[in-house]
Amino acid sequence: MNETDIIPSITYPSQRSSGEPPRVVIVGAGFGGLEAALKLGRAPVHVTVIDRNNHYVFQPLLYQVATAYLSPADITAPIRTVLRRQRNTEVLLAEATAVDVAAREVRVRDEITGAERSVPYDYLVLATGAGESYFGRDDWATYAPSLKTIPDATALRRKVLLAFEEAELTAASDPERVRSLLTFVIVGGGPTGVELAGAIAELAHRTLRGDFRHIDVTSARIVLVEALPRLLNTFPESLSEKATRKLEKLGVEVRTGGRVEEVDADGVIVAGERIASHTVIWAAGVKASPAGAWIGAETDRAGRVLVSGDLSVPGHPEIFVLGDTASATGDDGKPLPGVAPVAMQQGRYVGRAIRTHVEGRESPHPFKYFNKGNLATIGRSFAIADFGFARVSGFIAWVLWLGVHILYLIGFRNRLLVMVQWAWEYFTYEHGARIITPMRQPEQRALPAEPEPVPAGRT
Amino acid sequence: MNETDIIPSITYPSQRSSGEPPRVVIVGAGFGGLEAALKLGRAPVHVTVIDRNNHYVFQPLLYQVATAYLSPADITAPIRTVLRRQRNTEVLLAEATAVDVAAREVRVRDEITGAERSVPYDYLVLATGAGESYFGRDDWATYAPSLKTIPDATALRRKVLLAFEEAELTAASDPERVRSLLTFVIVGGGPTGVELAGAIAELAHRTLRGDFRHIDVTSARIVLVEALPRLLNTFPESLSEKATRKLEKLGVEVRTGGRVEEVDADGVIVAGERIASHTVIWAAGVKASPAGAWIGAETDRAGRVLVSGDLSVPGHPEIFVLGDTASATGDDGKPLPGVAPVAMQQGRYVGRAIRTHVEGRESPHPFKYFNKGNLATIGRSFAIADFGFARVSGFIAWVLWLGVHILYLIGFRNRLLVMVQWAWEYFTYEHGARIITPMRQPEQRALPAEPEPVPAGRT
Repeated sequence: MNETDIIPSITYPSQRSSGEPPRVVIVGAGFGGLEAALKLGRAPVHVTVIDRNNHYVFQPLLYQVATAYLSPADITAPIRTVLRRQRNTEVLLAEATAVDVAAREVRVRDEITGAERSVPYDYLVLATGAGESYFGRDDWATYAPSLKTIPDATALRRKVLLAFEEAELTAASDPERVRSLLTFVIVGGGPTGVELAGAIAELAHRTLRGDFRHIDVTSARIVLVEALPRLLNTFPESLSEKATRKLEKLGVEVRTGGRVEEVDADGVIVAGERIASHTVIWAAGVKASPAGAWIGAETDRAGRVLVSGDLSVPGHPEIFVLGDTASATGDDGKPLPGVAPVAMQQGRYVGRAIRTHVEGRESPHPFKYFNKGNLATIGRSFAIADFGFARVSGFIAWVLWLGVHILYLIGFRNRLLVMVQWAWEYFTYEHGARIITPMRQPEQRALPAEPEPVPAGRT
Repeated sequence: MNETDIIPSITYPSQRSSGEPPRVVIVGAGFGGLEAALKLGRAPVHVTVIDRNNHYVFQPLLYQVATAYLSPADITAPIRTVLRRQRNTEVLLAEATAVDVAAREVRVRDEITGAERSVPYDYLVLATGAGESYFGRDDWATYAPSLKTIPDATALRRKVLLAFEEAELTAASDPERVRSLLTFVIVGGGPTGVELAGAIAELAHRTLRGDFRHIDVTSARIVLVEALPRLLNTFPESLSEKATRKLEKLGVEVRTGGRVEEVDADGVIVAGERIASHTVIWAAGVKASPAGAWIGAETDRAGRVLVSGDLSVPGHPEIFVLGDTASATGDDGKPLPGVAPVAMQQGRYVGRAIRTHVEGRESPHPFKYFNKGNLATIGRSFAIADFGFARVSGFIAWVLWLGVHILYLIGFRNRLLVMVQWAWEYFTYEHGARIITPMRQPEQRALPAEPEPVPAGRT
């Protein structure tokens, strides 16, 4: 191995000797990547976790940040802290840009110094997740942002809250504009779209009631658009019907069976009808990260890597792909859904697989997904749950949803805080994180990589 | 009054009739402005509160956001929510740019539509706070940001956390750079500077311990620079000595009696000595907002308006100035300090004064500040308190500090959350809000006023 191929700052004495431990490189510290890293905590390997963020994000609750229920910090945990106790593990705050499968190196660039480096690996785990797909109409992203990252969520929170503020400012002078400002269109009737629609409806119709003097927030329109004949099509029909009725009770217009034909600055065109809207949110399609292209592997239409039964890449037993980046099938032969439990189970499986291989024990059975059930929540006290053998909906399902999500939030602190917050907001309809920032000084203008003047500000 | 001078969206039918209620315009929803507005809730007036942020900020805890203890939402409350129950009050999300004292109008510009308007007033309350002063060296702001707003705090949090990350990335290759990255210089030995220094010392020496593999975070230098002979010079000498000793125990280098001669990209020069530092924070001087210039009033050197005994502007009984914007003197003839209790008491006083005047009752006695005592905290379990008749320091004072601050946090939710958070962090040294964002997508790039593409992102 060429000396210069090693990142200077992560050269370990042991790596220079022949008896160096095998190097496991995990790209992406999401649900799957973190679980894999945690499983390798006591294995005789050197683990490098690469992520371009310093924090792990609990994605299922992003919509609550976008709707001002929670603060970004409530659904994140520093990656370093999660892995702190693993002395064989280090975290590299950098972005993977390519993989050299022949040389067994990951190319990375860090945002801070801008330096390019190579990280050599003996085992590679690709858990880079997925981004949104606009089905070939990427220009729509301009007008219909999606919800995949913390910046997405805070930007959306800002856009939604500012829509009400602008409506208040223009009330008398331009009713047309006000209608458009108070119309929120969510494209995509999956769990994210449904949860967003419910949360925005409650924000507008309940939380903000009484806050404004020149607009009637209860007149806000929330439109949920789904091209398929029904919402939540991964759930049984009976449950998606219940969800639809609940959404309509919350004041959401549910439009199923109508495809979005156009998205522009004025709103959307759905099944030939134009809906004027200032705020269009995209929750329709996902597209896997480019990891598949990095390693030149075979991918499905969504760009997910077709993996073997042990989640390794055919022809590359040393490379594993999991979570939203992988295309694996369940016992029923259907592709596994892009949900957290799948990624977490796959992460643990891959961690174990690498450990057994390093320890020279027999390789494990193929990965099997154990489906504990699907959950989706609508508003603040209603959810649907499908356990296959049983289907639950309503308040009980919501309590279940609450418990599961709090349980899975990494870090005691966040769990407790989120519980307190939810309890409070459940009884008051207050959204605690209703903060529009930055108003005047954009964060990274106020603090650029290259220093530049910081304008003085009034609070 | 000219019809077109009224903001269309806040034209009330009553304003067109002769029997319209007197209009009170309050510029700035800080401690003082909000208290004034709250006192007028039931008065026969129409109140307009103008602020360029949608949220109120609990400034004394900004340093805890900057050091990742708290999230922005934990120390903020939506202004509209605070004033929701006052049907005679409206909130205008806009920035005041000038005052026409002859026409009795405030000129405002709103960030959202960019429209300029005039807001007519019968009574004007200026509570626009203060910004930082670089003593004529505004170019220093480039390298030594200050801490006055939420964006300041999140930007500083980002800079501090990234300093450790960059040090980890460059560890082996450039020891010089690492030393500079791990050196934090705080300029100004007042309460803010002392609180910042203590919090950063604990962040570096305790919280981050174990998180990195290639740097020794306990080697981080925290230097607190004060030009005067001692820290916290508004406190009795005995207490500032105690504070100094505590800071040194926490690993802070306290440099008193040395003036900062230069601030540049490489660090600072203090009393002829160069200290190489990547992170220099300015907590030295404050400068009142331009409100004084707006009304052409007489101001002191810091730009604060010299007010009469009833906090009105000489020659303008209808204009009141309070908080950091006003220069008032206490019984001892000394100028009142720029602290929250002064602003709050002044706000309540002005609210009452306007109400009595509107109701035709006799005008009140001159404003008198009741000093309940001064508090400053050093680190997580030590504070100093000066009540004039008594002086307390140590843990008891800290508990006092904790109680007072939680008590004053507006909104039950924040109080409870912050208590939970503090309790947790007190026992664990965890900083819950250690989130560096945006890494890839700056918030307002991801969501501009004018739509532009939102890059897809990986969490």
